[in-house]
Amino acid sequence: MKALVYGGPGKKDWTEVPDPQLLEPTDAIVRIDTTTICGTDLHILKGDVPAVQSGRILGHEGVGTVTEAGSAVTGLAAGDRVIISCIKSCGQCPNCKSGLYSHCLGSEGASGIGWVFGHLIDGTQAEYVRVPYAANSLYKLPEGVSDEQAVMLSDILPTGFEIGVQYGRVKPGDTVAVIGAGPVGLAVVATAGLYGAAAVVAVDLDENRLERAREFGATHTVASSAPDWKDQVLAVTDGAGVDVAVEAVGIPETFQMAVDLVRPGGNVANVGVHGRPVELHLEDLWIRNINISMGLVNANTTPMLLRLVEQQKIAAEMFATHHFTLDNILEAYDTFGRAAETKALKVVITRE
Amino acid sequence: MKALVYGGPGKKDWTEVPDPQLLEPTDAIVRIDTTTICGTDLHILKGDVPAVQSGRILGHEGVGTVTEAGSAVTGLAAGDRVIISCIKSCGQCPNCKSGLYSHCLGSEGASGIGWVFGHLIDGTQAEYVRVPYAANSLYKLPEGVSDEQAVMLSDILPTGFEIGVQYGRVKPGDTVAVIGAGPVGLAVVATAGLYGAAAVVAVDLDENRLERAREFGATHTVASSAPDWKDQVLAVTDGAGVDVAVEAVGIPETFQMAVDLVRPGGNVANVGVHGRPVELHLEDLWIRNINISMGLVNANTTPMLLRLVEQQKIAAEMFATHHFTLDNILEAYDTFGRAAETKALKVVITRE
Amino acid sequence: MKALVYGGPGKKDWTEVPDPQLLEPTDAIVRIDTTTICGTDLHILKGDVPAVQSGRILGHEGVGTVTEAGSAVTGLAAGDRVIISCIKSCGQCPNCKSGLYSHCLGSEGASGIGWVFGHLIDGTQAEYVRVPYAANSLYKLPEGVSDEQAVMLSDILPTGFEIGVQYGRVKPGDTVAVIGAGPVGLAVVATAGLYGAAAVVAVDLDENRLERAREFGATHTVASSAPDWKDQVLAVTDGAGVDVAVEAVGIPETFQMAVDLVRPGGNVANVGVHGRPVELHLEDLWIRNINISMGLVNANTTPMLLRLVEQQKIAAEMFATHHFTLDNILEAYDTFGRAAETKALKVVITRE
Amino acid sequence: MKALVYGGPGKKDWTEVPDPQLLEPTDAIVRIDTTTICGTDLHILKGDVPAVQSGRILGHEGVGTVTEAGSAVTGLAAGDRVIISCIKSCGQCPNCKSGLYSHCLGSEGASGIGWVFGHLIDGTQAEYVRVPYAANSLYKLPEGVSDEQAVMLSDILPTGFEIGVQYGRVKPGDTVAVIGAGPVGLAVVATAGLYGAAAVVAVDLDENRLERAREFGATHTVASSAPDWKDQVLAVTDGAGVDVAVEAVGIPETFQMAVDLVRPGGNVANVGVHGRPVELHLEDLWIRNINISMGLVNANTTPMLLRLVEQQKIAAEMFATHHFTLDNILEAYDTFGRAAETKALKVVITRE
Repeated sequence: MKALVYGGPGKKDWTEVPDPQLLEPTDAIVRIDTTTICGTDLHILKGDVPAVQSGRILGHEGVGTVTEAGSAVTGLAAGDRVIISCIKSCGQCPNCKSGLYSHCLGSEGASGIGWVFGHLIDGTQAEYVRVPYAANSLYKLPEGVSDEQAVMLSDILPTGFEIGVQYGRVKPGDTVAVIGAGPVGLAVVATAGLYGAAAVVAVDLDENRLERAREFGATHTVASSAPDWKDQVLAVTDGAGVDVAVEAVGIPETFQMAVDLVRPGGNVANVGVHGRPVELHLEDLWIRNINISMGLVNANTTPMLLRLVEQQKIAAEMFATHHFTLDNILEAYDTFGRAAETKALKVVITRE
Repeated sequence: MKALVYGGPGKKDWTEVPDPQLLEPTDAIVRIDTTTICGTDLHILKGDVPAVQSGRILGHEGVGTVTEAGSAVTGLAAGDRVIISCIKSCGQCPNCKSGLYSHCLGSEGASGIGWVFGHLIDGTQAEYVRVPYAANSLYKLPEGVSDEQAVMLSDILPTGFEIGVQYGRVKPGDTVAVIGAGPVGLAVVATAGLYGAAAVVAVDLDENRLERAREFGATHTVASSAPDWKDQVLAVTDGAGVDVAVEAVGIPETFQMAVDLVRPGGNVANVGVHGRPVELHLEDLWIRNINISMGLVNANTTPMLLRLVEQQKIAAEMFATHHFTLDNILEAYDTFGRAAETKALKVVITRE
Repeated sequence: MKALVYGGPGKKDWTEVPDPQLLEPTDAIVRIDTTTICGTDLHILKGDVPAVQSGRILGHEGVGTVTEAGSAVTGLAAGDRVIISCIKSCGQCPNCKSGLYSHCLGSEGASGIGWVFGHLIDGTQAEYVRVPYAANSLYKLPEGVSDEQAVMLSDILPTGFEIGVQYGRVKPGDTVAVIGAGPVGLAVVATAGLYGAAAVVAVDLDENRLERAREFGATHTVASSAPDWKDQVLAVTDGAGVDVAVEAVGIPETFQMAVDLVRPGGNVANVGVHGRPVELHLEDLWIRNINISMGLVNANTTPMLLRLVEQQKIAAEMFATHHFTLDNILEAYDTFGRAAETKALKVVITRE
Repeated sequence: MKALVYGGPGKKDWTEVPDPQLLEPTDAIVRIDTTTICGTDLHILKGDVPAVQSGRILGHEGVGTVTEAGSAVTGLAAGDRVIISCIKSCGQCPNCKSGLYSHCLGSEGASGIGWVFGHLIDGTQAEYVRVPYAANSLYKLPEGVSDEQAVMLSDILPTGFEIGVQYGRVKPGDTVAVIGAGPVGLAVVATAGLYGAAAVVAVDLDENRLERAREFGATHTVASSAPDWKDQVLAVTDGAGVDVAVEAVGIPETFQMAVDLVRPGGNVANVGVHGRPVELHLEDLWIRNINISMGLVNANTTPMLLRLVEQQKIAAEMFATHHFTLDNILEAYDTFGRAAETKALKVVITRE
């Protein structure tokens, strides 16, 4: 088969590789029908994630069709259309039993982390992929949900909802600020209403992204280039500070923005993937009764979110801005890599 | 009356001052029968808390007898023995209604903070004190509870329980590490069992304090001077990391220790009062699904904790290591200020 | 002034009575600008609520203008437009401090119950009313909210949301069945989305009310006259049973319907006011892990709901079907009493 | 092998039967080292549980040694000492994923119920048993826990803790009444402290059982034969009513006792197995804001409780009052069936 293979920092190749094989009775093989690219893939290509070794097939998002299921895989059969969750889950370790699939201790790939595709084992930017713990890591697709919608459930929608909205403890009536209106930030915007957020304030440098935020349901938008950006956000709360501030960029400056916006007793939910430490001003914050959460998605809300997409309560298709086929994946990377210019959110890459 | 008056950095005086008067119908005047000294008082004396101005009477803990109650004070009368909570609460602002008394917006002293005594208004290291919002800020003492026990409910017991145990989300079966076995850290140790902690590991430099921790219920103690202190703590959890790590010192090094000990999906509860920023390694932590809490006590569990003290389920009297009378308060400060040497936890200062 | 006075079972009179006076420093006097009638008022008139004595002014819902505030009332002044909550709250008893305003132990009227207006003290179907514990029992109205919207916040909206949605533990993705589409049932329908209900199934005998339910956001409606009503509801959940079944009628038959609809592990939230016992089939239910809640509104979500009405996220005005002035209140009772025929939901009764 | 076989109402036989075989790759075969008898077994023998058919091997509690594990069973091998949970759990159905193992939809035995042993498939009162979904339904035993302790974790300890304490929402400082001091009621008494119950009041007819309750940690005991039993319980709460009332008998009278004891806003947790409906006085209760829970154990706290038994924080061995070997199981039934007379709590039945 062909696959996108990482060749060390700065290098990637769409090339011929051996077909994946079942290794464990709990594995399945899935033919990729639709995949996409994540900001994390760009980080890997820069060499920022040393655990990813040269020769690895990239990608952790995808929708496909089961072609083969191991002897211990229940509830799935060849021919089933499935979402491949970015997080594998053995379903039996203490972390999985408590819903912390992000830290599944199942032995596949490496102990202690649920994200393995395109990281510790071969990923989804390929014609086929081997899926460990398939019974818990794949979700059957109902008829009425398109591949394009479904691929947003591999990662961005559960990440925005779980790590932004749930970890941020959004509750009815809350004002939520979302710093960063990229795909994951927009997923926060799109799902904050599931806990009754009354106001959602999107903050970004890019006016195009703020416009998209309004389409996804932001009640207010603030250009972070404005000198009074902070006052603009606080004005929504009569100066009190927001109940929940979600960081969805991943740099120290935006983390500080989130901390600066939150009211005493409020929550800072970090969703961004960071590459550097931040300075936490505990000398001011210890007395403010704020809570700071962070984390990798557990993907245990995927079935629920899938149902809402099926009922057209979450417009997952709105994330798709560009379309490619697998053999044009290098072009897809180029478009996604120049998002500010191309206005790309998610690029959808299909088999044909 | 006489009171301990702050005279600017490094200066304090036990001196004659005017008696306090009722200023609002919701005020009460309380005769101090027992008070104590908090580590925060030492910080103030160093000049670390600029909001405290010269001339301020210090102290935010105390037990006393109501001598006069304003016309709008319900449920209290002259002669009642009461605990003075370190946090005033108007009971009517949105923060008070949601239990966030620490950020009571009532107008007394300054808006937005519940801690006013010895900070923004005159405090409890005096013969008498004016208590704003008395109906919500004083707790009547039942017969069977001594002043010495009760004064531990002004601050340290609710602080340890609310900011350490509750904010730390301790749950049955958890392993809890407490970094710092001073009075507040020991209050965490003493109350972690209220949510069923299975193991409580106290970590401190001072062997005497570790011994006290064992008396308060720690199941394990680790000397932080040991080169393998971290391995010793992790050994309690078979290497997995603790469920909850409580920081009860207030310096960057101990905050880092707490972060280093916590398992993926666990909680870091900061109880310490910090004077400097800490470096938060989000580049490692964003993926670990930990939660970091911090805050000033709300004191909304005071009635519950009082009941447990009354039932002898919390041995509050064990915090009292030294005894003084008000006119020897300077000596009490000296003893408390040299705690490593004197082995002081809380110094109890009585009227006579 | 004039007021609607209860004269014993079956008797009511719009008649001259003495003006109310401040009795406690925490009281306020409010001029009624808008009031309405509750199903409970009809029960009282039938003699079903023996605690209501002859001579009592009826009514527990209203919007008005403060004319006089006692010396201990903070945050309110003559001239303020306010919502009168159906629940008085002293703000200081243990129940109030834990948010259980429904069982406020404040001494007004009778100990232990928050509902006093038109029950234990004179009510709101009058030109003026005395409001005990005014600081906690009145909510200031912002400019943009009309009286007609606001009067729905006295009782029905918080009742539907707190006792139906919150006590029913509705969570994102849930299917919620609401048995009974009267004003309170419709308030459940209107607020179930605040916790992300994916499907809301309204069940009623009256086709007109089912139509109203769809307008308020029900995704499905089922006529309870249909022989297969149960199958119709279960079909929404592929036969599994609903996550939450809300009883909003108050008779044994509808309570049983709610129990029959709920899935194992689900919640039955009783909102209806019952006059007779129900048979609870514990011999079948003990093993089903269901939860049954019930209660009087606490009205502690009133400020939050008010904000959502202000932001036009809850269309409170849709409950108002008929309009009267106070001097036509007997006609209003007649219209409301024949709701099946007149299609009345809430009758709005204004000063002029 | 030999096993206790049900022969229809009133009939049981310790007799030769075929050895169990692996039927699915997720099965294991376990040699029973220790088993016990549950009150439910007595109900079955009376014919009260029609789902149990003649020929069925009884028993749902046990500790044993794995002799054979199916090809898809991970984490277990022949020779492992294990607790057999009374609830099988497939780990993959929606109910299992949300922790509701009691209603595991896995296909074994019958859909929708987790309790299968001695009910829908052959049970543990035998020399060997086949365990479906073994990876999720067996718990490995650490060295320091005896069989006698461990067998209390098959059912009674998790049932008491989950259905009594957790479903009853016990929280620090609560007063908990436990109606019925049989093995499961005592398990509630023994674990109420894990959420900080301040007072635990055991209520029973049998003075011997009240004495046992005190040994298990009850702070108060009340003989339900006393005419003023209710006043005695309420006196513990100064007349306010208990925070949580646990029903652990299973008859209408004791359910009513629980309802009568609970304060407004409190919880009634039904643990008892009922055979008849109860009358629920909604005409009084609708306004009292109580919550009524019920259910079959999920056994998802078994690993946590096992850890506490290992640490000697729960004295599981105290439940064992009588000892037998498997070939004397009929005598064990006799002793257990005359518990009032023999003072039996749990009878421990060992291989040899």
